[in-house]
Amino acid sequence: MHFGENMFDYRRTHTCGELTKKNVNEVVKLSGWVHRRRDLGNLVFIDLRDRYGMTQLVLEDTSTKLRAEWVISVRGQVRERKSGMANAKLATGEIEVAVEALEILSSAKIPPFNLNEESLEVSEELRLTHRYLDIRRGDIMQKLLVRSKAMLETRSYMNSHNFAEVTTPVLGRSTPEGARDYLVPSRVHPGTFYALPQSPQMFKQLLMVSGMDRYFQIVQCFRDEDLRSDRQPEFTQLDIEMSFGVPEDIYELTENLLIRLFKECKGVDVEPNFKRMTHAQCMEHYGCDRPDLRFDLRLHRLDDLLAETEFSIFKETLANGGCIKGLCVKGGAEMSRKEIEKLIDFVKPFGLSGLAWMKRTTEGWQGGVSKFFSQKELTGMEKRAGVDHGDLLLMAASAEGAVNQGLDHLRRHLGKKFNLINENSYAFVWVVDFPLFTYSETDDRMASEHHPFTQPHPDDIALIKTDPYKVRSLAYDIVLNGYELGGGSQRIHDSHLQAEIFKALQLSDEEVQEKFGFFIEALSYGTPPHLGIALGFDRLVMLLTDTDNIRDVIAFPKTIKATDLMMQCPSQVRQEQLDELEIATKEKAL
Amino acid sequence: MHFGENMFDYRRTHTCGELTKKNVNEVVKLSGWVHRRRDLGNLVFIDLRDRYGMTQLVLEDTSTKLRAEWVISVRGQVRERKSGMANAKLATGEIEVAVEALEILSSAKIPPFNLNEESLEVSEELRLTHRYLDIRRGDIMQKLLVRSKAMLETRSYMNSHNFAEVTTPVLGRSTPEGARDYLVPSRVHPGTFYALPQSPQMFKQLLMVSGMDRYFQIVQCFRDEDLRSDRQPEFTQLDIEMSFGVPEDIYELTENLLIRLFKECKGVDVEPNFKRMTHAQCMEHYGCDRPDLRFDLRLHRLDDLLAETEFSIFKETLANGGCIKGLCVKGGAEMSRKEIEKLIDFVKPFGLSGLAWMKRTTEGWQGGVSKFFSQKELTGMEKRAGVDHGDLLLMAASAEGAVNQGLDHLRRHLGKKFNLINENSYAFVWVVDFPLFTYSETDDRMASEHHPFTQPHPDDIALIKTDPYKVRSLAYDIVLNGYELGGGSQRIHDSHLQAEIFKALQLSDEEVQEKFGFFIEALSYGTPPHLGIALGFDRLVMLLTDTDNIRDVIAFPKTIKATDLMMQCPSQVRQEQLDELEIATKEKAL
Repeated sequence: MHFGENMFDYRRTHTCGELTKKNVNEVVKLSGWVHRRRDLGNLVFIDLRDRYGMTQLVLEDTSTKLRAEWVISVRGQVRERKSGMANAKLATGEIEVAVEALEILSSAKIPPFNLNEESLEVSEELRLTHRYLDIRRGDIMQKLLVRSKAMLETRSYMNSHNFAEVTTPVLGRSTPEGARDYLVPSRVHPGTFYALPQSPQMFKQLLMVSGMDRYFQIVQCFRDEDLRSDRQPEFTQLDIEMSFGVPEDIYELTENLLIRLFKECKGVDVEPNFKRMTHAQCMEHYGCDRPDLRFDLRLHRLDDLLAETEFSIFKETLANGGCIKGLCVKGGAEMSRKEIEKLIDFVKPFGLSGLAWMKRTTEGWQGGVSKFFSQKELTGMEKRAGVDHGDLLLMAASAEGAVNQGLDHLRRHLGKKFNLINENSYAFVWVVDFPLFTYSETDDRMASEHHPFTQPHPDDIALIKTDPYKVRSLAYDIVLNGYELGGGSQRIHDSHLQAEIFKALQLSDEEVQEKFGFFIEALSYGTPPHLGIALGFDRLVMLLTDTDNIRDVIAFPKTIKATDLMMQCPSQVRQEQLDELEIATKEKAL
Repeated sequence: MHFGENMFDYRRTHTCGELTKKNVNEVVKLSGWVHRRRDLGNLVFIDLRDRYGMTQLVLEDTSTKLRAEWVISVRGQVRERKSGMANAKLATGEIEVAVEALEILSSAKIPPFNLNEESLEVSEELRLTHRYLDIRRGDIMQKLLVRSKAMLETRSYMNSHNFAEVTTPVLGRSTPEGARDYLVPSRVHPGTFYALPQSPQMFKQLLMVSGMDRYFQIVQCFRDEDLRSDRQPEFTQLDIEMSFGVPEDIYELTENLLIRLFKECKGVDVEPNFKRMTHAQCMEHYGCDRPDLRFDLRLHRLDDLLAETEFSIFKETLANGGCIKGLCVKGGAEMSRKEIEKLIDFVKPFGLSGLAWMKRTTEGWQGGVSKFFSQKELTGMEKRAGVDHGDLLLMAASAEGAVNQGLDHLRRHLGKKFNLINENSYAFVWVVDFPLFTYSETDDRMASEHHPFTQPHPDDIALIKTDPYKVRSLAYDIVLNGYELGGGSQRIHDSHLQAEIFKALQLSDEEVQEKFGFFIEALSYGTPPHLGIALGFDRLVMLLTDTDNIRDVIAFPKTIKATDLMMQCPSQVRQEQLDELEIATKEKAL
């Protein structure tokens, strides 16, 4: 069976996903991969697969040699399947194609893993080595298609709001701030290097100086960091900047974009008017700046209620300037001592030496540390933490940072353990009023929480000189279900204010010049008020496609060792290449 | 004058480009840059500028200090300009805004060049050093906005044809083929390197193996080549690949995309059904594979007419296997000997030792080499080259490559010199049937004209073994006005045919494995017929915005020395950075 004169015409009339009863009797040409072959003796059924779906073929010629993953092209007539043979799960499940001519376009070696199985139990290493087959399996393909759709929706949306997409350079300058740069040796200027951008931050601010007014870009960024499982050396960012606006504009723009993406790419209706929470509120009630608001289980401050406690450990903590917070586990009075011990072990890696606990039963407070508190203290805590009969109160006493960190992890752990999380809910929250400055332990000095161009909160400008750690900034993060989706800020456009910030950071004119030279120069030629945000696009697509694995939403990802297993890179290069660049490695001298 | 409580609300009610008579009496808030200030004693007129346009402000308070490029925000009432004062050139030319309150958002140093002048005569170096001001000037800004629009139109179009945009890695593998790679040293695997992609060619073919079916990407690519003025180390490509198609599909897809882009981004109606021309026809009639078809002035082969010529130079050329071609310059008989000498000098850098010439006047052939030819020869050339009374015939005799190269340059030179080119015409042509193989002088062996995965023309497969240089390929270029906009090919999907090509190229199995290893492996798991094209996106935007300077369509371009003058990069980096990468430069030892 052969097409004869059509041998080199590879065009199909339909894809494998579109034929229905409407097409019955039509003569069609389909192409695709042999997904499954069933031999019935006098007939052969083939499931033919392509990106769009699957169509059943019927061959009367049973002699044709066909194996899984061979690529074939067939011509045949569409007919309705015999009654009772329809497959309601398939869009094409009511029809089949009676093959009149068949051409084998290419045969295939036996794949290293089975592409038929939906829940595949092979190592990710093998899948990454043969990524093209892993994509063909369907699951990754679908995620990449959602990613493509999300990119187009984002771009259409941004354009409709007058944001122009401007491509910024990949070959940039290495900057002393931030994470480690990937370097690119220059051949034309030996001894010098480009750096791959960690973000287009400076470029987008320069575009505002240029009068571009509204900019966006979906852009690859690079950080040479030791990878965690949810990081990639190159990642994608939706980068946005606008002039003559206020944070409210960014909130509205971002919210409507996210609502659109969840609707168009996931079919989910997200509630408008996202919650807002100050950084201080987040730290107070959730112990972190990216709270998962799908469940309550808040942290409650108890130290003010225990100012005169006789319980020695707490007393000592308070004397040392520490803090005490509690978590109320609903129904937790049922928990055994052993179970509670497990929770205590759980928090230890997060900087807490342990937890105090007590149970509220119908008979009153019982067990744990309950005996150390006065009735007034017990009543106070009961009210504050919303404790009912049958609940367990867990308490942490330590430095505030440790209490927050430990109870944040505990809270999330309990949320999972007690199934408090509705996996189909989307709890967006804007975290605002971040502190402008932070104490850098490594440098033993005050540093910027975000970057030195972040606008201080207008109400706090007087505090820069007098009480800098109290200064709030116009920085904001958008958080979803405990993940930081992105963040940004209003930038400083006033050179006097900028100078004041540099002074507060104890940066000399020389240091400013060395670190930010050309950028400060640019800002001196008429800078509009501007602000922006950057959203982690990979993370966003992960949320749109319900995966926790960042590699699932990247076509050709790298491993945690920053290796591409398919291409086998990074790799050694020829000595001539190094000679031309006038560089040497340990193995290959100049 | 101050907004008071609104001090930190930077929002405007309108842009500087949208107020018309319809808005008269409205109170508006505008922000922008002071473009021009005219002081009338009791009144000050300010032209306020932003990305969207310019609006005239009237200030009664003449004491306010305002200089060019200061950023201000004003509140005021829109009023119609006094009769006779309207400016028809401006969209906002019928109104002005009577300022009630004004806030200076930021002052500005005096710019290093005047932003008011439309035709700016400053060095490109100065403009690139202050690129943000160069963009603000307006001309570059408009081109970047067209680029943004072209990107969105392209993406909408490709998506509407089921092409998914898939992001491919920037950190890839160095390949021995092609141009010089930019390398990125790996810190995690010292002594090894990533390479920045010269194109996503392998990735897009792997996506076809994966069943992605239709892929596109607007993607940055990198080549570490010595730059010509129209090249950049990083450039942008529209990359396309599809499965189960034929070249006709790519022609149709590309044509309709280009028609749409010229319409939407330039307002130009391009004629559908682009011309097609074989590579052989192009070389024969235009001496190059990217003919500018906006004007005729074709090359005419004369050697068959001169087989028995007595003219010794021509005789010798033919004896050495050379070729003779002529160009007929309409009305060229008017040209002085001196002018003709100039043309002869013009061709010399292009491999020709000179030109022969003769004039056709009403009295017959005159001057130059006319006396050396028989009447039969003269009549033959006259007919062949379409020579009329008053024309000049220019002839080149040499090796065919030199004749083609010299006359191609001469043809284009004459096209400009005699104003034969309609600058508002768009002469698209598909150049098809490229040869599959070419002779590589550097390696003294046969090489692939494009790459070894290019499909041979189905009619010529038998010639691969017997007469390989005659084999045509299914490769194609799209050419516009003498520029190669892009090119592509049908790829080989049959492993037997692929093996035959490698054999013809005298590549051993080991060499194939070394050069293309993992790629050949991938192709063995069921490869669909596939084909694609890559279009130079920078060049396309240059044509859409009428510029010959590639730097005009790139926001932050590099110089011909691959330097970013604004950021001052490539630059030296800290010794610790090199130490971490375990590399050394000549200056800085390990």
